[in-house]
Amino acid sequence: MPDSTKTTTACLIVIGNEILSGRTQDANLSYLANWLNERGVRLTEARVIPDIEDTIVTAVNECRKAFDYVFTTGGIGPTHDDITAASIAKAFGRPLVRREEAVELMRKFYGDDNLTEARLRMAHTPEGAEFIENPISRAPGFKVENVFVMAGVPLNMQSMLESVAHLISGGDPVRSRAVWSHTPESAVAQGIADVQNRHEDVDIGSYPFYREGRTGTTLIARSTRTATLDKVQEELMEVIRSVGGEPHIGDATDLKTGT
Amino acid sequence: MPDSTKTTTACLIVIGNEILSGRTQDANLSYLANWLNERGVRLTEARVIPDIEDTIVTAVNECRKAFDYVFTTGGIGPTHDDITAASIAKAFGRPLVRREEAVELMRKFYGDDNLTEARLRMAHTPEGAEFIENPISRAPGFKVENVFVMAGVPLNMQSMLESVAHLISGGDPVRSRAVWSHTPESAVAQGIADVQNRHEDVDIGSYPFYREGRTGTTLIARSTRTATLDKVQEELMEVIRSVGGEPHIGDATDLKTGT
Repeated sequence: MPDSTKTTTACLIVIGNEILSGRTQDANLSYLANWLNERGVRLTEARVIPDIEDTIVTAVNECRKAFDYVFTTGGIGPTHDDITAASIAKAFGRPLVRREEAVELMRKFYGDDNLTEARLRMAHTPEGAEFIENPISRAPGFKVENVFVMAGVPLNMQSMLESVAHLISGGDPVRSRAVWSHTPESAVAQGIADVQNRHEDVDIGSYPFYREGRTGTTLIARSTRTATLDKVQEELMEVIRSVGGEPHIGDATDLKTGT
Repeated sequence: MPDSTKTTTACLIVIGNEILSGRTQDANLSYLANWLNERGVRLTEARVIPDIEDTIVTAVNECRKAFDYVFTTGGIGPTHDDITAASIAKAFGRPLVRREEAVELMRKFYGDDNLTEARLRMAHTPEGAEFIENPISRAPGFKVENVFVMAGVPLNMQSMLESVAHLISGGDPVRSRAVWSHTPESAVAQGIADVQNRHEDVDIGSYPFYREGRTGTTLIARSTRTATLDKVQEELMEVIRSVGGEPHIGDATDLKTGT
């Protein structure tokens, strides 16, 4: 799927009323983003949508055409609001079928007496889907073409990602370099823009921060080319020095990833 | 805009490479969701998109037609990667214009000497936009029709929301009731489905948790009708008791909102 001249892209579809209601703060986006960076895949979009079948069908069908990989999280448990499997089946125009191999696994895990109707719901996938193993729980995820359907609970989701790692291939890993200073963004804006213009293969972002009563700016350069990154980092430090600031290597914010 | 027979909807567009790269964990979604709940507006979708003009234009144009309100966060600062204002102008087919009233405000704040080119970028909006005041910082947001363009830094974003509160009108506030127990989801699944079927005007979600080595389930009922919610809460507790569980009022997870 990926070729060396083109960025391999991915999209995350977070399925869950609990995120949109404000009850739960999503933690899967930043984890997935970092995990994909390591594999040279760029998380290019994320959508958070409610547990409504038509909405899931539309989002999955738009995204599976637009991106190399689509990951979904949420809605694969045993309760009435877990409608992801049925919705994905509908998106692909495939029947939702009961998978006897999953029933057997659950029978071993729960025993015959506890193999309730509700649990058997989790043994259904769209026809032809491949299971995604979930070593730390009983409910498997599944894959249909380029769509990976995973649990919403972060530990389960992370475990499933490891199970599909061999199926994901991108380019070189995306690396980053960070520089911070107590210089305001507006003072370095022109200098950064010049650095960005000189290095089109690097993506430079500027992020203001407030910490311990002082403002400042973190500059982040991202690229698959580490030699260029080192050069860009040096140039960004020089921009800060040129306006009288003192550059520090690193990211000033504590709002790091959820890993 | 809102009428009493229809849910008032909103969409959040998070604009920012830093979210998609995994560097920064978004904190605005859950804050906005709760803020809108209080005003009877339902956050119905959220998208996280990169700092790419065409992508911003497409997302804004899709969402402003599909939802009553659209909120964007991010990309309104003074640096080269702050392209939200220009992109929104393009989405609406309006020119991006320099707003002298904003220049004057900045002149007072920074003084003539510090009114740099970079800072003047922040005085541009699509023609005809209304400013959104940001009492805690200098860079204003703006509103074009039903699209509210706000800062990405949470404190600034929250401050801007207060400035536009009088412009947002929905229905009755959405309230919730939560019940948790150490009963597994699958044991209560059928009972919850029955409660849901009896109360179509309530949205019931089921969320498994792991805490201190024990699993369990939180059930959340959400509705604008508090009397119905009280009844549903009682019925959910009865479902838990009927399978031998012990119901507790409240949400077992600590993954509460970012407020």
